[in-house]
Amino acid sequence: MEVKFIPTEQLKEKPDENALGFGNYFTDYMFTMDWTKEKGWHNAVIEPYGSIQLDPASMVLHYAQETFEGLKAYKTKEGKVLLFRPDMNAKRFANSNRRLCMEVLPEEMFVDAIATLVSREKEWIPTIEGTSLYIRPFMFATESAVGVHPSNAYKFMIVLSPVGAYYPEGVNPVKIYVEDEYVRATKGGTGFAKCGGNYAASIAAQVKAEKLGYTQVLWLDGVERKYVEEVGTMNAMFIIDRKIITAPCDGTVLPGVTRDSVIQLLKSWGYVVEERPLAIDELMEAGRNKTLQEAFGTGTAAVISPIGELSYKGESIIINDFQTGEITQRLYDTLTGIQWGKLEDSFHWTYEVN
Amino acid sequence: MEVKFIPTEQLKEKPDENALGFGNYFTDYMFTMDWTKEKGWHNAVIEPYGSIQLDPASMVLHYAQETFEGLKAYKTKEGKVLLFRPDMNAKRFANSNRRLCMEVLPEEMFVDAIATLVSREKEWIPTIEGTSLYIRPFMFATESAVGVHPSNAYKFMIVLSPVGAYYPEGVNPVKIYVEDEYVRATKGGTGFAKCGGNYAASIAAQVKAEKLGYTQVLWLDGVERKYVEEVGTMNAMFIIDRKIITAPCDGTVLPGVTRDSVIQLLKSWGYVVEERPLAIDELMEAGRNKTLQEAFGTGTAAVISPIGELSYKGESIIINDFQTGEITQRLYDTLTGIQWGKLEDSFHWTYEVN
Repeated sequence: MEVKFIPTEQLKEKPDENALGFGNYFTDYMFTMDWTKEKGWHNAVIEPYGSIQLDPASMVLHYAQETFEGLKAYKTKEGKVLLFRPDMNAKRFANSNRRLCMEVLPEEMFVDAIATLVSREKEWIPTIEGTSLYIRPFMFATESAVGVHPSNAYKFMIVLSPVGAYYPEGVNPVKIYVEDEYVRATKGGTGFAKCGGNYAASIAAQVKAEKLGYTQVLWLDGVERKYVEEVGTMNAMFIIDRKIITAPCDGTVLPGVTRDSVIQLLKSWGYVVEERPLAIDELMEAGRNKTLQEAFGTGTAAVISPIGELSYKGESIIINDFQTGEITQRLYDTLTGIQWGKLEDSFHWTYEVN
Repeated sequence: MEVKFIPTEQLKEKPDENALGFGNYFTDYMFTMDWTKEKGWHNAVIEPYGSIQLDPASMVLHYAQETFEGLKAYKTKEGKVLLFRPDMNAKRFANSNRRLCMEVLPEEMFVDAIATLVSREKEWIPTIEGTSLYIRPFMFATESAVGVHPSNAYKFMIVLSPVGAYYPEGVNPVKIYVEDEYVRATKGGTGFAKCGGNYAASIAAQVKAEKLGYTQVLWLDGVERKYVEEVGTMNAMFIIDRKIITAPCDGTVLPGVTRDSVIQLLKSWGYVVEERPLAIDELMEAGRNKTLQEAFGTGTAAVISPIGELSYKGESIIINDFQTGEITQRLYDTLTGIQWGKLEDSFHWTYEVN
């Protein structure tokens, strides 16, 4: 892939690494590339971060043909720049685009584009504990048309943001509201795809949960409102009687990269992991009788987020005395250790950017 | 509402009214208005149609906080400019925005903005049979942020497009594929809202139906895959034993303006209209034993679109010998007659633009 480079006239000042927040700053450069039926992928450019021009009839503004990914770059003590399993993001991005009838970006181009941009922007990777460079690849429909059909033109972009912790709580336990009014996904829908519409639809439940004093929602399935699916923007795992239980990836749950990594780690440590429907009633009962030992969310943004409390139909259960559990902490330490190059990468998950 | 006007340097040439298609041309001007927490609605402008600037982190490009409406302006023989029930679009737009936690545009501002823009662009309203000026109001999130939350800034816009028939078939019967793999909506989701995500999710089924030789899909409910919901971008109505049956508006079906108008017309003509769940098995059986007399879709774009064939699980039923039925035709003639100011508007549905 040939990438044109347009230098910026003025580099930005880098923000204080102690007060990054999440997604508040963007780096000097962004990556853009266009696709049309006639030309295929073309016009790959790294250029100064800035506004793009869109026709008001661009289909993305009306019919939400838009997909995205999220991953992070880390800087090791030795100064190496590491990505974490970018091939998994590339695969999921392709699957999201297939579901929305969008052009599929070849997986190696996806990884190449990220590596090229991150390499140029490596000075922007923060180094203090808990920080990283968040990478946001995304694609959207740019055809100007009013009829509903697959767009004949797309734009693929990558922007970068130096970030701290996703939740103000950091790696401390969060309170979760079990949502039984709004639904995130149903079989036959787009639940497994990382597409804008899923997120737009989720905001109402998120706002409701926050008003009630909770950090996130736990979604139930859309058919029976009976089975636990995922937590806000993370997959959810529950440890009941030393078995780890998480929803299966059969169409309604996002196939998380962190989810997959956690499952592999747990199995390598000798734990039993069950990917199966878990009824909310079973979960609440396990909370009451204290066989629910730990619970946590997994996702790129927060990595591992312990769940300290679940509220469902007016009943609250406290998990592990609202403390981060032993396995939860071990997973966080191991994953972030591998991501930051502090621990041996026996799974070959990290990808070094040159 | 004070609206600034920025004149164009060069008016466009108007397209041939006989070859408009749907959504291929846009008029000289567009309406834009911004909302922020600090300023509320501000900066209302009618300006030359053209590209807008968007930050690449604008939330609309990632999380699809975006809603839209569709209505039409008609020019009568006497030169009057009429809208059709714009207050209904204003109400639905507000409901869509509420569901997506977006700022709600006051309904009178919605109608005012449309009337002001259409009035300026009235030379663009085509006059030959079956043509009109399609009006596309839409709103989207403009905050630049990576976290998922309600945007703190929105842009509201209106663009106009002179259009002919939505389907190449015109008012001739279309072939419909009953979709039992993909799902459009579930209770607790966004089915009743006119938001981008619903349309992005629907394209895969549409593409599949077209490949199989059908014009549109008929959606089934997301829970039991048993009940008939709507047809592609239209509500669906079925006449069985002289009763008109259509899906109820209880969360998963778009509350169509044409749907509501058709129900009122049919009731005024003495027909029984049942808004109730209609099982696909009941519908197919009625097709087999010929008690299914007529079927049609209702929507702003196509107004009334007769359904000539339904295909479900490999079985096809032909409706009314693939001819436009008597009631279907009467509805089309009456609605378009009122819309074009040719028939008496006894329901007070038309809104004159000065």
